[in-house]
Amino acid sequence: MTVSRPQAALIAADWGTSNFRAQLVDGKGKIIDERASDAGIGKLSGDHEAAFERLVAGWPTVPAIIAGMAGSRQGWREVPYDTLPLAPETLAAHLLSFTAGNGRKVAIVPGVMLRSPPRDGDVIRGEETQIVGLLQSDPDFAGVAILPGTHSKWVKVAAGRIVDFQTYLTGEMFELLSKHSFLRHSVSEEGDDLSVSAEFALGVMRTAVEGLPFLGAIFSVRARQLLLDVPKAGNLAYLSGLIIGGEIAAAKAAGLLKPGEQLAIVGTKSLGRAYSRALTLSGHEAATLDGARLATTGLIWLAGQAGLTGAPAP
Amino acid sequence: MTVSRPQAALIAADWGTSNFRAQLVDGKGKIIDERASDAGIGKLSGDHEAAFERLVAGWPTVPAIIAGMAGSRQGWREVPYDTLPLAPETLAAHLLSFTAGNGRKVAIVPGVMLRSPPRDGDVIRGEETQIVGLLQSDPDFAGVAILPGTHSKWVKVAAGRIVDFQTYLTGEMFELLSKHSFLRHSVSEEGDDLSVSAEFALGVMRTAVEGLPFLGAIFSVRARQLLLDVPKAGNLAYLSGLIIGGEIAAAKAAGLLKPGEQLAIVGTKSLGRAYSRALTLSGHEAATLDGARLATTGLIWLAGQAGLTGAPAP
Repeated sequence: MTVSRPQAALIAADWGTSNFRAQLVDGKGKIIDERASDAGIGKLSGDHEAAFERLVAGWPTVPAIIAGMAGSRQGWREVPYDTLPLAPETLAAHLLSFTAGNGRKVAIVPGVMLRSPPRDGDVIRGEETQIVGLLQSDPDFAGVAILPGTHSKWVKVAAGRIVDFQTYLTGEMFELLSKHSFLRHSVSEEGDDLSVSAEFALGVMRTAVEGLPFLGAIFSVRARQLLLDVPKAGNLAYLSGLIIGGEIAAAKAAGLLKPGEQLAIVGTKSLGRAYSRALTLSGHEAATLDGARLATTGLIWLAGQAGLTGAPAP
Repeated sequence: MTVSRPQAALIAADWGTSNFRAQLVDGKGKIIDERASDAGIGKLSGDHEAAFERLVAGWPTVPAIIAGMAGSRQGWREVPYDTLPLAPETLAAHLLSFTAGNGRKVAIVPGVMLRSPPRDGDVIRGEETQIVGLLQSDPDFAGVAILPGTHSKWVKVAAGRIVDFQTYLTGEMFELLSKHSFLRHSVSEEGDDLSVSAEFALGVMRTAVEGLPFLGAIFSVRARQLLLDVPKAGNLAYLSGLIIGGEIAAAKAAGLLKPGEQLAIVGTKSLGRAYSRALTLSGHEAATLDGARLATTGLIWLAGQAGLTGAPAP
C-alpha cells in the first residue's frame, strides 16, 4: 500500500505592504505547505516576479493567486479598483490574469474603492478577499466585519455583497502617540493586557460611550499622569482604549455600527480580544474569526471561479 | 537738556517647554529691551538659576516674574496648580516668590488644572497669564480665547474669571501625520497658504461642519491621492483643515463654542489667519490678538499685584 503524495495545485498568497504570506494547496484546498516573511511590497523595488519566485522557491510552478498590495500601483501589476456594491463573483471576474516569464499562471485580486462625500474616498486591498472567505464560510453573514490593525477596516456586508467600508488609522495612531509624541513620557512601552485592564475600559467608555471626541480626549493621558500619578502601564492601556473607542465612535457615525448589527472581528487573537471587549463595553457582541484562514478560503474560491486550479501541477 | 535713561524695574518672562522669551520693562511697563531663544525648560537639566542668568546676562538684577513651564515639576520651582473658577487676583495671590542666590527676587506664576469627568484632566501653564493680559486689555471680555499651537488651548472666560479650558494636540498631530505617518507620502512638506486654500476649507467643512469624526476622516488624505491624484500641496492643506476642523468640533462638543460666543484668537499672525478662516467656515467670527503682547501685559499686572516692581532698580 502506498500513501498518495498530495498533488500541489495552487499557491494562495497575501502580499501586503509589510508582509508576505503564502500557502501551497492541493486540488481540494488542503494546505500542503506554507510560508511567511516580512518581504512586503513596501520593501521591494523593481522585479516583483523574481521576488515572488524567491519567496516560493522549492514549490512547483503551479498557478498563483495573490491578494493585497501586489495589485497596487507599487505592486507586481496594477489592478483597477472594483466599486460598491461588490459581489464575490464580480471580484472573480475582474481578476487580473497573466502568464509570468517562467510560464506560471498568475492572478491578482482587485482592491475596492469608494467615493461618497462627506467621506472623500477610501480603499481596501486584501481585506475584500477575507470577506469572500467569510461569505464562503457563512453565506448568510449580513452585518459588519471588523478587521483591526495598523489601518483597521470595517466592512459592511448585505445580501452577499460588500456595500460599504471605512478605514481607521488606529494601529498607526497608537504607535505615533505612544512612541513619537510628547505622550511617550506618560505611558510605558509595554502595557497591561487590554482584555482585562480597567484603564483600557475607562478609555473606551470616554470615546465610544460618553462620546468625547478623540481630539478632545487625548491630552488627558498627560494630565492623568501629572495630576493623578497614574502608572504608565495603565496609562498606555487608557490611551489604547481612547483610540479603539474613537474608532468605534467613528464607525457608529459612519452608519457601520447599528444596534443589533451582526459583527465579526477578523484578525489575530490578542487584538481580537481587545476589540471584543471594547465592543461589549459599547453594548455590542461580536464573534471572532481567524483572518488568515478566511484569506486562504477566499483565495481558493476566487481561483476556482477563475478556473485557475484546473490544470494538475507537474 | 538730558534725555532720561529708562529705569529698568522688572523682567517679564515666558519660559516654556521649547522657548524662552523675556522683556526688560521700566516702572511704567514700557519695554526697554527683549530677548528670545530656544532654551526651553525641556532642554535643561539641573541648574535653572544659572540658565536664567545666562539668558538675561547684561540686564540689571531687577525682580523677575516668570510664567510657563518654569513652574512645572521639571521647572525652576514647582508651583501647585490653581483650580477653576480662577480670578486674576487669585493667581496673583498664589505666585511662588523667592529670592535667588544672587539676591534677585523671583516670582513664578501657577498653572491651572481641571478635573471634570468625562474629561479626565487637563492643565495649562503660561496661557493663564495671557488670559490675565486679555482681561487687562478688555475687562469686559466674556467668551472663549483660542490659543492655537502645538498644544492648542481653548479657555472660557466669564465674569472676569477662567471657568473652563481644554487642550488639543492639533499642532503635534499635524506634525505626526504629515511627517511621521504613512500619509507623508500623500502630502507635500510645504503647503498652500491655509488662509486662501480651497482644500483647507474642504477639510474644515468635513470635520467641523459635516461632523465627520477625525479618526474616520484622515485616511481620505491617502485615498484622495490614490483615486483623485490630488496634488500633495493641496492635500497637506486638506489634512490641516481636517485637524483644525476636528479641534473646532471637539471644542463644540466640550461646550466651548456656542452660537454667538465672543471669540478671540490669541497667537501668531499666520496661525491666526488659518483659525480665523476655519471659524468663519464654521459660522463663527473671532477677533485676533497678539499673544506675546498679552503675555507681557499679564506678567506686568501680576508683578504689580504682588508688589514685585516696587523697588527701583540699581
